[in-house]
Amino acid sequence: MTVTDHDPTSFPVSGRNRLRRLHTRGSFDRAAVYAVLDAAMLCHVAYAIDGQPYCTPTLHWREGDRLYWHGSSASRMLRHLAGGTPACLTVSHLDGLVLARSGFNHSANYRSAMCFGTARILDDPDEKAAALRAVVDRLYPDRTASLRTVTAQEIKATMVIGMDIEEASAKVRAAGVGDDEEDYAHPVWAGVIPVKTVLGAAEPCVRLDAGIGFPPDLASFAPGRRLDEALLETQRLYEDS
Amino acid sequence: MTVTDHDPTSFPVSGRNRLRRLHTRGSFDRAAVYAVLDAAMLCHVAYAIDGQPYCTPTLHWREGDRLYWHGSSASRMLRHLAGGTPACLTVSHLDGLVLARSGFNHSANYRSAMCFGTARILDDPDEKAAALRAVVDRLYPDRTASLRTVTAQEIKATMVIGMDIEEASAKVRAAGVGDDEEDYAHPVWAGVIPVKTVLGAAEPCVRLDAGIGFPPDLASFAPGRRLDEALLETQRLYEDS
Repeated sequence: MTVTDHDPTSFPVSGRNRLRRLHTRGSFDRAAVYAVLDAAMLCHVAYAIDGQPYCTPTLHWREGDRLYWHGSSASRMLRHLAGGTPACLTVSHLDGLVLARSGFNHSANYRSAMCFGTARILDDPDEKAAALRAVVDRLYPDRTASLRTVTAQEIKATMVIGMDIEEASAKVRAAGVGDDEEDYAHPVWAGVIPVKTVLGAAEPCVRLDAGIGFPPDLASFAPGRRLDEALLETQRLYEDS
Repeated sequence: MTVTDHDPTSFPVSGRNRLRRLHTRGSFDRAAVYAVLDAAMLCHVAYAIDGQPYCTPTLHWREGDRLYWHGSSASRMLRHLAGGTPACLTVSHLDGLVLARSGFNHSANYRSAMCFGTARILDDPDEKAAALRAVVDRLYPDRTASLRTVTAQEIKATMVIGMDIEEASAKVRAAGVGDDEEDYAHPVWAGVIPVKTVLGAAEPCVRLDAGIGFPPDLASFAPGRRLDEALLETQRLYEDS
């Protein structure tokens, strides 16, 4: 697998992450990849086990070029692979439905990032404990300090997977309808229907003490806010803390 | 791979789709799997090429137990696999952030479906043409009839992949905070922050004739509606047409 020369702000390019669909805006820049990853908490991870691919949804978080995610059904089968296993973690945001004047030019606006590396199960209890603090505090600023303390048994019972990003790419389509020139006169409605993922009003636990209000530390999660904006904000707060 | 006996409303169960996380509600029912698949247009597909897994976001649609999706960068590499290749197509919806009183009990509300089968590139032009009509009309009722007619060159230029679902499972978490009994008295805010994906106001193409209004056939995509509800509605309209 040939890796081309690159500058330090970009991920290297190889056969795995080369971009083929040039009508979208592709990038190997770290900033572009991070912006997609950090705006989501839900990702999908592909593994192959005995030649069978699994596409597993899970929650991810990022520290520099290192990705972490929660283990799941499929990843449990990876436990015997002490040396790690090749994996691909992808995050996608759907931003709009693009209705054109021909079926062929129908499309979607989206942001996606694909990250390649070797996934390894974290075994060291201290490393796992740090990762489990990080996932809470990265999402919800300073929240760990206010929680019931984690137990050794809980750390043992949680599977955390880590992967250094070896290669990655981001793709973005954020545009209007792209019809063939001769089709613009065709008499059919064409345009973009925007899509966004938003937060609703917080629903307190039915057993919550009535004296405990919604904490100011969770201000990023105000009702009606876009989830991607809230998550980018809390990632920045986490990195600055 | 042992497949257990099953009734016709359910997908068979094997080592691939056995559910291991029983604290969530899992199901092999066709209706449960379809409900997750049909409520989304964005899916992720896992393939393995020479042992390297790829997790590719793409648009999917469904006809009975057959899934279709648009080919992409990674799938292009599959072209030489005339006999098809094992794949896993997953759809996930994030429905809420679950903030508990311990880090361990933090969770997310979600709906997901994993589908296993053998992915094959559609080569027959008639089958491809039918699939390309279906993806438009399944999303946007009766739209194909109003579009500029598809050309043979466009059919040739589009890659469509088909996969019969051999096994599948759906998982749903739709619940409040599940804390350990002794933690409920811990004085920290706990609850669920709902998440939903909604449609914005349609943005007409800048070159649209001012006399062409938003079509009644797209009534499912009214501003403020949930995307999942709109897509379930148009799938039903498509199946009834």
